[in-house]
Amino acid sequence: MRRSDTLIPTLREDPLEAEAPSHKLMLRAGLIRRLSGGLYTFLPLGVRSLLRVINIVRTEMNQAGAIEVLMPALQPKDIWERSGRFDVMGPTMFKVNDRQGRTLVLGPTHEEVITDLVSREINSYRQLPKTIFQIQTKFRDEIRPRFGLMRAKEFIMKDAYSFDADWDAAGQSYEAMYQAYTRIFDRCGLQPTVVEADTGAMGGSSSHEFMIMADTGEDGIVECAGCGYAANLERAERKAPAGITFDNSERTPEEISTPNLRTVEEVATFLESPPERLVKTLIYVADEKPIAVLIPGDRELSETRLTHALGVSTLEMADDETIRRVTNAPTGFAGPVGLEIDVYADAGLEGYRGAITGGNRADTHLVNVDLARDAAVTTYANIVVAQDGDTCPRCDDVLRAKRGIEVGHLFKLGTKYSETFNAGYLDDQGKEQMLVMGCYGIGVTRTLQAVVEFSHDDNGIIWPGSIAPYAAAMLVLDPDDEAVARVASEIEDALAANGIELLVDDRDERPGIKFKDADLGGFPVRIVVSKRSIGQQSVEIKLRTEDKPIMVPVEDASAHLLGLLQA
Amino acid sequence: MRRSDTLIPTLREDPLEAEAPSHKLMLRAGLIRRLSGGLYTFLPLGVRSLLRVINIVRTEMNQAGAIEVLMPALQPKDIWERSGRFDVMGPTMFKVNDRQGRTLVLGPTHEEVITDLVSREINSYRQLPKTIFQIQTKFRDEIRPRFGLMRAKEFIMKDAYSFDADWDAAGQSYEAMYQAYTRIFDRCGLQPTVVEADTGAMGGSSSHEFMIMADTGEDGIVECAGCGYAANLERAERKAPAGITFDNSERTPEEISTPNLRTVEEVATFLESPPERLVKTLIYVADEKPIAVLIPGDRELSETRLTHALGVSTLEMADDETIRRVTNAPTGFAGPVGLEIDVYADAGLEGYRGAITGGNRADTHLVNVDLARDAAVTTYANIVVAQDGDTCPRCDDVLRAKRGIEVGHLFKLGTKYSETFNAGYLDDQGKEQMLVMGCYGIGVTRTLQAVVEFSHDDNGIIWPGSIAPYAAAMLVLDPDDEAVARVASEIEDALAANGIELLVDDRDERPGIKFKDADLGGFPVRIVVSKRSIGQQSVEIKLRTEDKPIMVPVEDASAHLLGLLQA
Repeated sequence: MRRSDTLIPTLREDPLEAEAPSHKLMLRAGLIRRLSGGLYTFLPLGVRSLLRVINIVRTEMNQAGAIEVLMPALQPKDIWERSGRFDVMGPTMFKVNDRQGRTLVLGPTHEEVITDLVSREINSYRQLPKTIFQIQTKFRDEIRPRFGLMRAKEFIMKDAYSFDADWDAAGQSYEAMYQAYTRIFDRCGLQPTVVEADTGAMGGSSSHEFMIMADTGEDGIVECAGCGYAANLERAERKAPAGITFDNSERTPEEISTPNLRTVEEVATFLESPPERLVKTLIYVADEKPIAVLIPGDRELSETRLTHALGVSTLEMADDETIRRVTNAPTGFAGPVGLEIDVYADAGLEGYRGAITGGNRADTHLVNVDLARDAAVTTYANIVVAQDGDTCPRCDDVLRAKRGIEVGHLFKLGTKYSETFNAGYLDDQGKEQMLVMGCYGIGVTRTLQAVVEFSHDDNGIIWPGSIAPYAAAMLVLDPDDEAVARVASEIEDALAANGIELLVDDRDERPGIKFKDADLGGFPVRIVVSKRSIGQQSVEIKLRTEDKPIMVPVEDASAHLLGLLQA
Repeated sequence: MRRSDTLIPTLREDPLEAEAPSHKLMLRAGLIRRLSGGLYTFLPLGVRSLLRVINIVRTEMNQAGAIEVLMPALQPKDIWERSGRFDVMGPTMFKVNDRQGRTLVLGPTHEEVITDLVSREINSYRQLPKTIFQIQTKFRDEIRPRFGLMRAKEFIMKDAYSFDADWDAAGQSYEAMYQAYTRIFDRCGLQPTVVEADTGAMGGSSSHEFMIMADTGEDGIVECAGCGYAANLERAERKAPAGITFDNSERTPEEISTPNLRTVEEVATFLESPPERLVKTLIYVADEKPIAVLIPGDRELSETRLTHALGVSTLEMADDETIRRVTNAPTGFAGPVGLEIDVYADAGLEGYRGAITGGNRADTHLVNVDLARDAAVTTYANIVVAQDGDTCPRCDDVLRAKRGIEVGHLFKLGTKYSETFNAGYLDDQGKEQMLVMGCYGIGVTRTLQAVVEFSHDDNGIIWPGSIAPYAAAMLVLDPDDEAVARVASEIEDALAANGIELLVDDRDERPGIKFKDADLGGFPVRIVVSKRSIGQQSVEIKLRTEDKPIMVPVEDASAHLLGLLQA
């Protein structure tokens, strides 16, 4: 393809609209253009790489035994009401009114459609297992679309859904997808961190996220350099420190007047104490029962972990009235001493002595609290959000907080949707059973940009060969020179005969611009044919990842390039 | 692929929801399933054939030098207001409100987006010509979605847009697309009729439709068996008959009382005359000027042809007040005699004698009208809708009316959109010029179904090899028999080694069901491996298009099949 025949509008300057490096580069290299907020047009280079990502995803999904379907983006409202997610999705789901005044939705995902379909078409154990996928355009009305394709209103996703006879079989389907995801991201040149996204009461891990580490990532995780353990901040475990003692004396709790001082920061400042010496007491209502939750003053509660630890299905903060009823005090002064409700404490508080807590009386706190002695803690459990510097729960090494881009997600759904849509089957005894489901997503357009985020330098993109829009760019520096034109054309033909298409920069531009654009575009190999190189009976060949070119004799050039590009 | 591992739910009976044969077969063979009105899920067989059609379209578009982009389905409202089409599209265009209360639209087509893009990215003659295409999902809120994928609310289209320096170059881009379309439909096994969809005042043909003839087609055309001339009914020309004389006497016009008889049928019945003896006089307002339009009583006016013949930009029927003003009579009694406005008559009326016309007086008609003698006709032109039995305008043969499915459409747009979006370029003299555009659509999902409509028999689909979901179905009739299983597996492996994937019917079903499902699914080749065939040291091979199978020795089977399937 001649560069002048396609459309690759490059930009010298960073566009104002872009923050993330990958977003800047996708715009600058001419891969995408913004239509309006969160909506992007893929230009020819962008389409070529996108199609290569899609091809990798499709090949590996087929290889894993998944079968491909294509479901509509427009979906009737009623299936969303049936699953209860019409309200859950809220304004994130685009609604469309048709000419009859009926409401349709633009699918942000397809659990409802696929389970409804499967409930009609699968009815026997003989048809199991089935993993069904599609590569399709999704729509989400993001509050703040940003970073280009990272968080767009319209994006391409590979979504897959597995249907199995039981949990064991569902585990195998899950594992097959896990392996397929590993191969997909590997083929895309990415090195994802696989994050446990759900642990606790369900027993073992039932969800994994494939994350690409990047400063611009929107998801926080902790990762252990020692053993590789990695998890979402909200869901990560950490090894709690052993019983912390702030005061070794045997002094008993003593009331301190703290007028209007409600927050950890206010009280700690007033008492000239480090915040971690405070025990934050939060009153929650778990499955309609009020409970107290204790965490160190310098940590954040993970409601996800607490929910799992309690094994409850609903958990919400208590209102002021409930707090007053169970603590006899206004909000802001709750403490564990003397409470008559169940008390759940973070494992890091076990053995806490000399602590400061609320006093269960207005404008009052307690000092000299020994939790084991003074409070009736029902259970200690790991219920705070992990943070940088925490201890790894598996190997005692240090957890490091990082940011990541979620490119894939696997989830065990169980029978939630199959029960809603009555998606059952007859087992080999003729007995009706519910299908056990899993769902598996890959953000295809997001993965494309994640590759750029992961692999670039100051000069531009560095494509892996597997998804480069062109394997090589050939810069023809003196296109009017007969020998130059002939050699360039011979190389182009020789590669084309082997199914390799070059991007030939035939533009009437200065060499400097051609070099810059080739680097910016990130093509794995750069070939320069010029009067100078032909004068040396050579062409110049440089890998994007190397600093220096090599000169290859004209007669060996095609063979040399085939060696590089067919590898 | 084992049939039990994929999802091909076949139906014995015609589904009630389907009318067209192809729609019935797509449902029965398990290619698609209805989600709700006009919305369909593609099942695995449907996806496989769809991807093959997409691949053909993409390959031929690339081959023709077009470059691929991918534009969003969601589009901001303002570009549609700018082009004036927000109102034109009316309720056919789905509207979406976002969380900020702004209106977006779901693109029914992409002239606005692409012209807006090109106005920013193309600015020099050096960048021309460019033909830009995408293969993308479109949305239209059809009043009456029907025939499955034929008229759906969500469908896949290949849309392309050409941008040229001038009309001559635009003509070449148009021609390249015409040739590409010819190859695409040919590769899909279709034999389209190419219909002139626009002639007249613009001079020559500026639009073509590729139609697949089918009784269920929604578009009417006439076609000449003699010379191949074909056109949309509304736009077709016909050779008008030479001056028709109903009465050779020299009698002059005479008033007849026709109380309350307004329609051609009422007057003809009352006067015991054939309807064609009546001249229908219609009063129109063309570019704000009232005119009279005469057509034979048994024909319909083509407003398209009249608009072109007049060279006007607006044409509408006159209201009752205007009719009374120009004819001095209430609506229903207009006639050409004595009118003081311009009179345009269909060419078929030239030389009409002994005709019956309105009398320009209430409840009155005239008989014995000789148009040449009694009426001041300004111009005769071909302005009626063509019909079956008309004479071909090119070769005097007979035009036959047919029905067709429009699968492709080419259109010269000129500078309409480039002017709106200020899409200009600097020519080689540095002078600003407007880009001359064309647009070109292929209904991809519609094409898939058109193949089924075009190629099936009573037993099911007959896929052309180029887009069959599987090249061959292998029915394993006694899968538990060791020799049967071994031979089946050897054949499968031998073909797989050559890149050919079989659909292996390994189900525990009666042979009759397997045979019926293989025919229904339309796979080009059917292979049967059974105890009986192995007893004869053979496998049975039958083409879908042949009645009888042949027996091929086991040891030759793979080679024989490769010969058939690699052809």
